[in-house]
Amino acid sequence: MTAPTSDTTLSPALPAGAFQVYDTTLRDGAQQEGIALSVADKIVVAGLLDELGVGFIEGGWPGAVPKDTEFFKRAAKELDLRNAELAAFGATRKPGQRASQDPQVRALVDSEAPVVALVAKSDIRHAERALRTTGEENLAMIADSVSFLVGEGRRVVVDAEHFFDGFRFDAAYARAAVLTAFEAGAEVVALCDTNGGMVPSWVAQVVADVRAAVGPDAVLGMHAHNDSGCAVANTLAAVEAGCRHVQGTVNGYGERTGNADLLAVVANLELKYGLPVLARDEERSSGLAELTRIAHAISEVTNISPFARSPYVGASAFAHKAGLHASAIKVDPDLYQHTDPALVGNDMRMLVSDMAGRASIELKGRELGFDLSQRPEVLSRVTERVKDAEARGYTYEAADASFELLLVEEIEGARPQYFTVESWRTIVERAGGRGTPANAEATVKLHAGGERFVSTGEGNGPVNALDHALRQALVGVYPELEDFELIDFKVRILDSMHGTDAVTRVLIEHTDGQAVWQTVGVGPNLLEASWEALTDGTIWGLRRRGVAPR
Amino acid sequence: MTAPTSDTTLSPALPAGAFQVYDTTLRDGAQQEGIALSVADKIVVAGLLDELGVGFIEGGWPGAVPKDTEFFKRAAKELDLRNAELAAFGATRKPGQRASQDPQVRALVDSEAPVVALVAKSDIRHAERALRTTGEENLAMIADSVSFLVGEGRRVVVDAEHFFDGFRFDAAYARAAVLTAFEAGAEVVALCDTNGGMVPSWVAQVVADVRAAVGPDAVLGMHAHNDSGCAVANTLAAVEAGCRHVQGTVNGYGERTGNADLLAVVANLELKYGLPVLARDEERSSGLAELTRIAHAISEVTNISPFARSPYVGASAFAHKAGLHASAIKVDPDLYQHTDPALVGNDMRMLVSDMAGRASIELKGRELGFDLSQRPEVLSRVTERVKDAEARGYTYEAADASFELLLVEEIEGARPQYFTVESWRTIVERAGGRGTPANAEATVKLHAGGERFVSTGEGNGPVNALDHALRQALVGVYPELEDFELIDFKVRILDSMHGTDAVTRVLIEHTDGQAVWQTVGVGPNLLEASWEALTDGTIWGLRRRGVAPR
Repeated sequence: MTAPTSDTTLSPALPAGAFQVYDTTLRDGAQQEGIALSVADKIVVAGLLDELGVGFIEGGWPGAVPKDTEFFKRAAKELDLRNAELAAFGATRKPGQRASQDPQVRALVDSEAPVVALVAKSDIRHAERALRTTGEENLAMIADSVSFLVGEGRRVVVDAEHFFDGFRFDAAYARAAVLTAFEAGAEVVALCDTNGGMVPSWVAQVVADVRAAVGPDAVLGMHAHNDSGCAVANTLAAVEAGCRHVQGTVNGYGERTGNADLLAVVANLELKYGLPVLARDEERSSGLAELTRIAHAISEVTNISPFARSPYVGASAFAHKAGLHASAIKVDPDLYQHTDPALVGNDMRMLVSDMAGRASIELKGRELGFDLSQRPEVLSRVTERVKDAEARGYTYEAADASFELLLVEEIEGARPQYFTVESWRTIVERAGGRGTPANAEATVKLHAGGERFVSTGEGNGPVNALDHALRQALVGVYPELEDFELIDFKVRILDSMHGTDAVTRVLIEHTDGQAVWQTVGVGPNLLEASWEALTDGTIWGLRRRGVAPR
Repeated sequence: MTAPTSDTTLSPALPAGAFQVYDTTLRDGAQQEGIALSVADKIVVAGLLDELGVGFIEGGWPGAVPKDTEFFKRAAKELDLRNAELAAFGATRKPGQRASQDPQVRALVDSEAPVVALVAKSDIRHAERALRTTGEENLAMIADSVSFLVGEGRRVVVDAEHFFDGFRFDAAYARAAVLTAFEAGAEVVALCDTNGGMVPSWVAQVVADVRAAVGPDAVLGMHAHNDSGCAVANTLAAVEAGCRHVQGTVNGYGERTGNADLLAVVANLELKYGLPVLARDEERSSGLAELTRIAHAISEVTNISPFARSPYVGASAFAHKAGLHASAIKVDPDLYQHTDPALVGNDMRMLVSDMAGRASIELKGRELGFDLSQRPEVLSRVTERVKDAEARGYTYEAADASFELLLVEEIEGARPQYFTVESWRTIVERAGGRGTPANAEATVKLHAGGERFVSTGEGNGPVNALDHALRQALVGVYPELEDFELIDFKVRILDSMHGTDAVTRVLIEHTDGQAVWQTVGVGPNLLEASWEALTDGTIWGLRRRGVAPR
């Protein structure tokens, strides 16, 4: 339908909102080896996806996965989505049953998600061998399940599983599955390259065939996996052939080689095809400028290191090895990059240049309420410190509070001195064999309000114990700490930086019941890194409350 | 020229050897942030590429990069290539000079590489703004440089830089650059998507245009970068449109988002298009079965961790998680994978996950050498234990060794009893303020070989210290532990939103110099979880060595 254009003007062929961006990070993406999301993680990711402006967020499989049942319950209460609809994933009813009486189908209704994605067999071999039923009964299962859910007021997306492989084996059956779904009231049928082995020209041929069979008004979608390394391109080929709904996952997470990277798909559609696929509102043209930030924030939640070479959002995506072309790049950056990195919230980096990062640091400062545009010398110092810290393993993307303290230090000459630390110690001990619980305690010695405090705290681990000891020592001088709570901590071991030993990065999240803030610590020793993040979190929280050092 | 086929029979349209696979890992791949190859590294990589069966290995830029000059000298002496030709990379002569007198061009001749790749401007804007010359002089530079090198007996590949962007700006000029190169005697002109922003349909259109201009006998090539996430697909689109030469890098290394992943390109061409693109000889049909081994061997040389989700060669590329489908996968593996992993030297793996069922555990057992098919009662007990453990936060998908110990325990009645633990303790202490380093020590008390051991270890953190103390205590009884090393540990806090009942999961990786294995530990206390993973890792390693408990 749409040929790529060389500029970013909107395609006149497609009004905003007519295109559906469907994210399945929380369901199919979570199938990735090494990803295990808690309900709380899922809530955070859903919020970020909504900020990005996707149309649909597939939250999981209620009924089949207890954590997902819980997610839909909590999402209904806790999430205030501005752009996206929540979708619950499930399967067509069992053979020989009625959809209305299939507990798995009923659980989809009970989830109260407004959208239901139903996986359906469209490859006759899978119907016969995996479901052990007939092709005919499989079509009846699709028809019955879709019409039941539509009758319950749900918008239904049918994921035609193994569609492309099925089509190449028995095109008539695959087509019949799609037609059956539409006839039963499905809003969208997504054609799935479940095994991920397609290449764009195959996809184009098959989609064109199906498009002709279903007519121009039926909404076809594309769900691609990356086993041939073509998931993004296969999705674009499907859009060119007429699909108006694309599925994928943030950072291309997913089983095996992953799903289509939804971020690259969306950036390509917006920037290269001129299609307005992300939600727009009065405040902003689209969420595209948030792409890089959201990609990285979600990788903090999944605890999967961001891939530096990711299209559009990778740390290296716009990094040029300076040398031969450095001056030419400075004069004519557009001749050396396929798109303006600012459009996706990323930065051009010159790998041997001292200009890197100034603009983003100025922006970040402004976001936190510090205008650095008139203070180039402060901006230079902060940029230097950030670059130096990042080289040592710090990251400020998910630690605004630490970044703000660094900024305050450079602007005001020092960070607020609420206390000085004399020493700390943790002891963790298991006094018996397997099964005996371990005990953790921590002792801190510090000075505040003109006094010296020695305090010992216990906890279910050394960081918890340190946190207790620190707050206990200070709460007499700063009663505000009564409200503080450590609510999350994340640990990542970084590959050896510059050939030295591995370093540990800790991200800590505090709350005082009103705000939530994040700090970062780095060190060869896990507890040293934790202590840095703990004390920074305490300092930032007191400063936020307007407390003066005593 | 070639439409994808569904089987792997050779394309009758293309005799073996008529297709050129051109690797530029050592030149363009080495532009990647974080890659720095020594001459010795380059020699090793070239040997591996030759084993794979590529036709050309671009070794670097002699004359411009001293290390590369050295590489060509040593390669001539040390490399005994069976399949590939070495190519030296360089640029067309300077404006206003003669090729025969340009030292940079002369250095290409002096390298004695039989093939020379010349980068040439084909975008008029780059000729004018970066080279500061006229379009006309740029064409003269191409003609003069190519014919000089051909006169010196070299096969010449011209890399038409920024070709696609140039074509879209001024098609006539871009075409003229290609025609000039062929007229001067170039064997191949590779069309470069230098900025990487193309999508397959653009590539197809442009290549078809050029193909018509140059005629059917001229060999066109494709050189793609991955900035739009389409480098592999763009290369395939170019082949479909008539290119018979593909360039790329192993593992997709390269500047920014990298180059086209040559391994995925080659696997797709051989397996999906039926094109015999890798060298064949009497001993083997092609190097494809070496693909995974060579990908990993080269990532050892570059010291870039292999990307688990890489198509064809990634550790996760054929890993299945869904417990739901495990029974069907067992019966019909081909219905669940796009190609047979053995064809590219990879393996199917079943991940024991969340949705673990009996079938996936049976398969996993088989993979580890335990046949549970005749022991349904053991299978039931293991399945129950895995489900229970996963509910408490364990995950076995990245901890095969822990899973195997669980299996051994159920099959043999107990895990091997190499030692019993009386107690352990860690102390981490920072005796001063900010900037003072912290010290970590651990003391373990345990029994082995009829004796009681008390040992204290130090480390850069508490886990490191525990690991040292444990091995120190046991090494007298089990000297094999001398070889053991803790090489990675990962920490994840589960269900962490409300601090109180957070559970910590630790994954630890050990090696003994031969094997690498992973264990998991879970507990409310980070160090308790680490201790479990540490001791399991020690036990598994001793058992692997065939050591009997003493």
